[in-house]
Amino acid sequence: MTTTLDVLHRSRRTVRSALLDALGRLDRDIRPVAAYHFGFTGLHGGPPSDEGKAVRPGLAMASAAAAGAPDGAGLPGAVAVELVHSFSLVHDDLMDGDRTRRHRPTVWSVWGPATAILVGDALLALAQEILTEAGTPQAARAGTLLAATTRQLVRGQMLDLEFERRDDVTPAECLDMCAAKTGALLSTSAAIGAVLSDAPGPVVTALAEYGAQLGLAYQLVDDLLGIWGDPATTGKPVFSDLRSRKKSLPVCHAVNSGTPAGNALADWLADARDTGVDGLRRGAALVAAAGGRDWAAAEARRRVAAAEQALRTAAIPAAPRAELIDIARFVVDREH
Amino acid sequence: MTTTLDVLHRSRRTVRSALLDALGRLDRDIRPVAAYHFGFTGLHGGPPSDEGKAVRPGLAMASAAAAGAPDGAGLPGAVAVELVHSFSLVHDDLMDGDRTRRHRPTVWSVWGPATAILVGDALLALAQEILTEAGTPQAARAGTLLAATTRQLVRGQMLDLEFERRDDVTPAECLDMCAAKTGALLSTSAAIGAVLSDAPGPVVTALAEYGAQLGLAYQLVDDLLGIWGDPATTGKPVFSDLRSRKKSLPVCHAVNSGTPAGNALADWLADARDTGVDGLRRGAALVAAAGGRDWAAAEARRRVAAAEQALRTAAIPAAPRAELIDIARFVVDREH
Repeated sequence: MTTTLDVLHRSRRTVRSALLDALGRLDRDIRPVAAYHFGFTGLHGGPPSDEGKAVRPGLAMASAAAAGAPDGAGLPGAVAVELVHSFSLVHDDLMDGDRTRRHRPTVWSVWGPATAILVGDALLALAQEILTEAGTPQAARAGTLLAATTRQLVRGQMLDLEFERRDDVTPAECLDMCAAKTGALLSTSAAIGAVLSDAPGPVVTALAEYGAQLGLAYQLVDDLLGIWGDPATTGKPVFSDLRSRKKSLPVCHAVNSGTPAGNALADWLADARDTGVDGLRRGAALVAAAGGRDWAAAEARRRVAAAEQALRTAAIPAAPRAELIDIARFVVDREH
Repeated sequence: MTTTLDVLHRSRRTVRSALLDALGRLDRDIRPVAAYHFGFTGLHGGPPSDEGKAVRPGLAMASAAAAGAPDGAGLPGAVAVELVHSFSLVHDDLMDGDRTRRHRPTVWSVWGPATAILVGDALLALAQEILTEAGTPQAARAGTLLAATTRQLVRGQMLDLEFERRDDVTPAECLDMCAAKTGALLSTSAAIGAVLSDAPGPVVTALAEYGAQLGLAYQLVDDLLGIWGDPATTGKPVFSDLRSRKKSLPVCHAVNSGTPAGNALADWLADARDTGVDGLRRGAALVAAAGGRDWAAAEARRRVAAAEQALRTAAIPAAPRAELIDIARFVVDREH
């Protein structure tokens, strides 16, 4: 079962319905694949599955509220950011060769690479369609913001692939990659409702900064779960990020720590791929001994504090502000 | 050498400069690959190559003029349609496994599948960014139009891949595929300048219809060149579309003609892939004998006439109307 926040739960119902409407526009060959990816259906018409945390659309809805706009003002933004997130997952899974996501076969592993490329393309196009079709200046500005964000996602994935082939990735490079791959879309999710609501510049800026900090916290927690998360709740194999030798934030910090454990970790990572559980346990112990685990947990808390601080720099009503703070705390406390 | 029209030549210079500016926004890992794809540079910094006919941006520029708008009003549209066209070529080449395009190695064949996916994604996002960033209602509407068109491109490619695995494709299905894969973007190219210029509905509709008809003519000529074109000018191997057993429009018409040659062609297509030049010459002769060649040539002329007719349904000034008619005639008379 998914533990979730009331604010995310409420927005999820509205967004789910709008997202289903949006997917209904897709071509008959694309629609069922997209519906499967979102968890609305199972394989071959099987039962639906857990639809994920819906943090991005929740942020978009809260973002409009933070701008004092009525319910619904953020909805096209909520649908659009979820579509862009899904586009990137479908394409990334193919590029990364990942065969499962959240306990289920990935799109490319079921329908093949060409369909995965096309479904991703269609979701990206649909996101822009939904976002711009109000035909207002705010809709155009939101479209520009989302397009620029999409280019950041692409940049992040390009760096991620490049880092897999390098053993000298610095912590600054790793943070930059995470800011592009995760931070940018969370930042845009947190700002897009306000953009659509024609909020004043300082409100948009504060929300975007809140989202960017939250995005880094999100990635830090993701990286911790990728090593020490419970496979039953994360849906990933045990020690999955170590198995793939991913240059995650805690690993990058540990390798660059200058400690004996950090140096041993560098050797372990460069070693012919020891993917037995004992070897992975040893790798995880080295990350922890080199301070990577504690640093990542502390850094996630610092980023959440910075996210909350950002909200104080603009006039945001108390109720949506409290919801945004709840979302930030949920992100660091989650277990999957 | 490229023979081209004065109207396309004039718009090309302006568009080329704006396109280069747009590509300048791309990330350092993406930009050189995109510049290569557009022919602005060669491989490894080699000399530039022929940049193509630039029909789509030429249409977008003429479209604004047709709406009585000043020079430059169509420019974001011209850049955006060329970016979307390139996005689809980069992704399609990968899906189709095509290793060369216009005498040069394709992006995926040089940089690999992951880079081709990411470069395509970045070009698509950039198109929306350039198009919407004026922040006007017209920009938002143009964004919606281009996004819906992108979904048509995806649908067309999905059908194209499906048709490769079927031997019962009807002429109607084949036309529908071409309308999605080629007609939609030419239609949008011809309308987008008018949309950006806030032209009256009937002008936009007339231009969109002109472009849709032109798009089918374009594809018919492309299909003829794919069988009987001179490899030296088309940049494709001799009989290339027959070699790949493509369900092109003349082939589809011939197979469904009910003639003895049509039936023999169906057998030839189903036959274990005879790709020697003699076999291909026999296939081409069967397409012609079954009427596929003459039909496609006549149908292209009919579609151009319908395109010209569409322009008469709305108030379009004489000069841009004449240019649009020139472009339509250029499309059917071209040799590559």
